[in-house]
Amino acid sequence: MPKVRVHNVTISLDGFVAGPNQRLDAPFGDGVGWGDELHAWFVAASQDAAAGKTGIDVDFYVQGDRNIGATIMGRNMFGPQRGPWQDESWQGWWGDNPPYHHDVFVHTHHPRPDLEMAGGTTFRFTDEPPETVLRRAFDAAGGKDVRVGGGAAVIQEYLRAGLIDELHLVIAPMLIGRGARLFDQLDDGIDGYRVAELVGSPNVTHAILVRR
Amino acid sequence: MPKVRVHNVTISLDGFVAGPNQRLDAPFGDGVGWGDELHAWFVAASQDAAAGKTGIDVDFYVQGDRNIGATIMGRNMFGPQRGPWQDESWQGWWGDNPPYHHDVFVHTHHPRPDLEMAGGTTFRFTDEPPETVLRRAFDAAGGKDVRVGGGAAVIQEYLRAGLIDELHLVIAPMLIGRGARLFDQLDDGIDGYRVAELVGSPNVTHAILVRR
Repeated sequence: MPKVRVHNVTISLDGFVAGPNQRLDAPFGDGVGWGDELHAWFVAASQDAAAGKTGIDVDFYVQGDRNIGATIMGRNMFGPQRGPWQDESWQGWWGDNPPYHHDVFVHTHHPRPDLEMAGGTTFRFTDEPPETVLRRAFDAAGGKDVRVGGGAAVIQEYLRAGLIDELHLVIAPMLIGRGARLFDQLDDGIDGYRVAELVGSPNVTHAILVRR
Repeated sequence: MPKVRVHNVTISLDGFVAGPNQRLDAPFGDGVGWGDELHAWFVAASQDAAAGKTGIDVDFYVQGDRNIGATIMGRNMFGPQRGPWQDESWQGWWGDNPPYHHDVFVHTHHPRPDLEMAGGTTFRFTDEPPETVLRRAFDAAGGKDVRVGGGAAVIQEYLRAGLIDELHLVIAPMLIGRGARLFDQLDDGIDGYRVAELVGSPNVTHAILVRR
């Protein structure tokens, strides 16, 4: 059976995926710049992966792309605009050739036409419930697994619904203090999960959550 | 200068030091038993320390007792009673010969007479503010450091006041889901701290927070 997987979600030691006020010029909010202590491990791992190196961080990192046939994300992970789309010409954070190369379903209260990008990525905007979006994602994935990319709100929604099979979490040596907390708004959803692995690297700590 | 230190504070992967409804027959609240995944590392480390072994966990563990001359704790860490003392004959969680062997200052809204125990431990109950209690603790410590033991509420109070110099935190491979969160109620207090160390052992991850 294909699975629903989350990978490379990085939280600060105090549990935040981002600071407050996420916006175009600060995608991770106040106090968190791309590549600083929160994501330094990710940047290094992606470079190591490109160079064919191995290691704890890069080995976990590359798992995130293995056997993934479709991705689901929240609107904030596509781009910073809130409310009705003001500008459909801006095509998200991910550049002209997004690093997905498959269908990406974007949860939004304001659907807009599909956006086909170079390299095989198609963003499909939807206001359908998680179960419906997941069914479409599995269809698009053609037998491969589906990845829930983020951000925190979408991961929480899928955890609450018990839809996630495996979650790879990374704890970075940073304190953020306020903003978007990953382990929040979960109701009893987290009770269905346990920690299967906890592995420290010289840079961060990796954890794998699976169903009980 | 003597320091204010916190040691061996264990949180679940989702950030809790205890579940809800802490009470006499469940000191760590619903869903968390003493010695289970949350504190298994601590039990093993204390046994290893007694046996003279070394290792990542035991090395961090023994630091917690080194050069400590006085301890500060919250009332819930002394015992489970809330409100006015119903029964002063019960002398807390710590047994006839508590593992402190120095003065222990217990924050409570309901002071009661000092309680001298075997082995050199004296519990001193106080409703004074943290700064005052800390001054008394430094006097009692005679040049050694002061340890803030817990629980979460007292650690938060001392962090908010910027009184803690060093905090050793342990992340255990368990999910609790609800209860007392360590990184909560901190206002801007956490902004004065940074992560100086993040070290994984085969069992848990250790982190050291220090002042920026």
